[in-house]
Amino acid sequence: MPRPFNFSAGPATLPEEVLRQAADEMLDWHGSGMSVMEMSHRGKEFISIAQQAEADLRDILAIPSHYKVLFMQGGAIAENAILPMNLSRGARTDYVITGSWSQKSAKEARKYCDVNVAATNEGDHHTRMPAYGSWQLSDDAAYVHVCSNETIHGLEMHELPDLAALGSRAPLVIDCSSHITSRPIDWSRVAVAYGGAQKNIGPAGLTLVIIREDLLGQALPITPSGFNYQTVAEHDSMYNTPPTYAWYLAGLVFQWIKAQREGELTGLAAIEARNVAKASLLYGYIDGSGFYSNKVEKAVRSRMNVPFFLPSDSLNDAFLAGAKERGLLQLKGHKSVGGMRASIYNAMPLAGVQALVDYLKDFAQRHG
Amino acid sequence: MPRPFNFSAGPATLPEEVLRQAADEMLDWHGSGMSVMEMSHRGKEFISIAQQAEADLRDILAIPSHYKVLFMQGGAIAENAILPMNLSRGARTDYVITGSWSQKSAKEARKYCDVNVAATNEGDHHTRMPAYGSWQLSDDAAYVHVCSNETIHGLEMHELPDLAALGSRAPLVIDCSSHITSRPIDWSRVAVAYGGAQKNIGPAGLTLVIIREDLLGQALPITPSGFNYQTVAEHDSMYNTPPTYAWYLAGLVFQWIKAQREGELTGLAAIEARNVAKASLLYGYIDGSGFYSNKVEKAVRSRMNVPFFLPSDSLNDAFLAGAKERGLLQLKGHKSVGGMRASIYNAMPLAGVQALVDYLKDFAQRHG
Repeated sequence: MPRPFNFSAGPATLPEEVLRQAADEMLDWHGSGMSVMEMSHRGKEFISIAQQAEADLRDILAIPSHYKVLFMQGGAIAENAILPMNLSRGARTDYVITGSWSQKSAKEARKYCDVNVAATNEGDHHTRMPAYGSWQLSDDAAYVHVCSNETIHGLEMHELPDLAALGSRAPLVIDCSSHITSRPIDWSRVAVAYGGAQKNIGPAGLTLVIIREDLLGQALPITPSGFNYQTVAEHDSMYNTPPTYAWYLAGLVFQWIKAQREGELTGLAAIEARNVAKASLLYGYIDGSGFYSNKVEKAVRSRMNVPFFLPSDSLNDAFLAGAKERGLLQLKGHKSVGGMRASIYNAMPLAGVQALVDYLKDFAQRHG
Repeated sequence: MPRPFNFSAGPATLPEEVLRQAADEMLDWHGSGMSVMEMSHRGKEFISIAQQAEADLRDILAIPSHYKVLFMQGGAIAENAILPMNLSRGARTDYVITGSWSQKSAKEARKYCDVNVAATNEGDHHTRMPAYGSWQLSDDAAYVHVCSNETIHGLEMHELPDLAALGSRAPLVIDCSSHITSRPIDWSRVAVAYGGAQKNIGPAGLTLVIIREDLLGQALPITPSGFNYQTVAEHDSMYNTPPTYAWYLAGLVFQWIKAQREGELTGLAAIEARNVAKASLLYGYIDGSGFYSNKVEKAVRSRMNVPFFLPSDSLNDAFLAGAKERGLLQLKGHKSVGGMRASIYNAMPLAGVQALVDYLKDFAQRHG
């Protein structure tokens, strides 16, 4: 039986080649006689794995040398607290609300600092981005926080905000959990990028924080040492024992990204082109179907997370059951939005999106 | 080539059967068409894995029903902060210092509460336990913290302190990272047990917290939601995305423990008997060798972590190189103690300890 296509929002599908390699190396990594899980994080074997993964990520995302890459734990939800602990100095911060995830981030940050909601799309039920003209940025914010891809509501910032042009001198922080490594990041606009690994990078339990060095060293005294960005940076992410196996898997995914080809394109450029093609195929069919609908403004639709609705919720169970029969898994929408959601991360091939569109057509014909 | 014996202090060796099963199931767990890494943590497949793992751990350790089991992240170093955030109420706490780990715990706790060092063995260079008569417990401590097995110095509490008998009404908290599931826990004496998974349970990145329910709900306002014990408990450890693959691996290890047999003994009793036999074999040889030495008082030597010294540090490199040739890995001692350390956790078979003793004998003959 061919492998099903898994549209889970995260933890999410991984490249089959990566899983095969992980299985092959499970008992003996490169003749070491050890599983990667069994290696001391301070031994030369794991250090080489860790360093290669970081080097590959730096290469893929063109991370400038004055940014540190931290391999941490707890996911974006933990970072919602860890970030203001490290960067707010207990002062004022700006949060832009574009969906559930940025809402959660702002709420958690209130424990540690004075949160200004600079803009929100709540009035539009999170279906369009708040216009830049509506952003009320503070004069003195320690940082401005945005979620650059809203996993639940399916909005993506296809261009990151240029804070200087908006009159703010604050560093921009992006929660990019659900679209990191799906496209380049414009580092001239971003000071901190963070995200859980379980969408585009690897197994749950690993969190990446990419931070401009000059922002280190201002943590609140209550910051746990294991979550103090400066401490983590000084110890090469090994102040506490890192999630070594997840780090290794992330490294395999980075190598997979680098090996991708799409016509003349390679690596992240190939991945991005494929993501554009996948999203275009799916949204194009949904919009033209006269049966399915997506409520998000076209210019800000996510390439990664595609929520959509059937004409009636009474069809949902039949839709999901039929999908599963065809090997199309985990399409149920988030409970706060309802309907369906197809997450089509890097590891989802175009063939998977085509199979989904074929099923959408059949289902619409039978129920339209 | 047979699998080498890996004496790493953590991340540490895992049962070969567990690794083989993980490799076999890597691309398709039980016909689901998904790797466990690819499953939504909210789907029925992963929920069943998670619940079975908890049930098996409860069975193995006879955890009473009024204790919650939390599957968290960040390891014992993160817990050093998370624990006082959740339980100290910012008030007085008692810490007993028996080695590097309890020292670290006490230091970190000072950020959140008034730490009373109730006893310490620093004067004895962490080679014996502080006598109960020397413990200066507070009248009003929010809790008393001990590290029940000191991984670096190789001391273990073979009987946990009876705080009531020592005149304290405070709940006892144990950091049992490096000997959890190696022996039973006397829950009549313990209110909270916590530990990183990477010694006896599974891959790094998973932290277990077992806590008496009545202690929930008193976290400091600065506690991150993702690390608030009550919040985590209310969400069955899924308030943030848990480290799903590590949780699954832990579940496989728990099933392995339950399946162990040693004569008439089964499960944890079999494991404990084997651990006693392994430790007895290794310490017995070291003590009688006239060549190697272990400086820890006999009554409190760890069954899990056996630091030992050669007669001269100048022999260390030759010792380690010869060990590696024989397939005896990761024997170098912690840098703060020096010498060698053999960590002989549950997954280390008696044959591994026998192979180590055989090598110790040969090396002593050649260099004695």
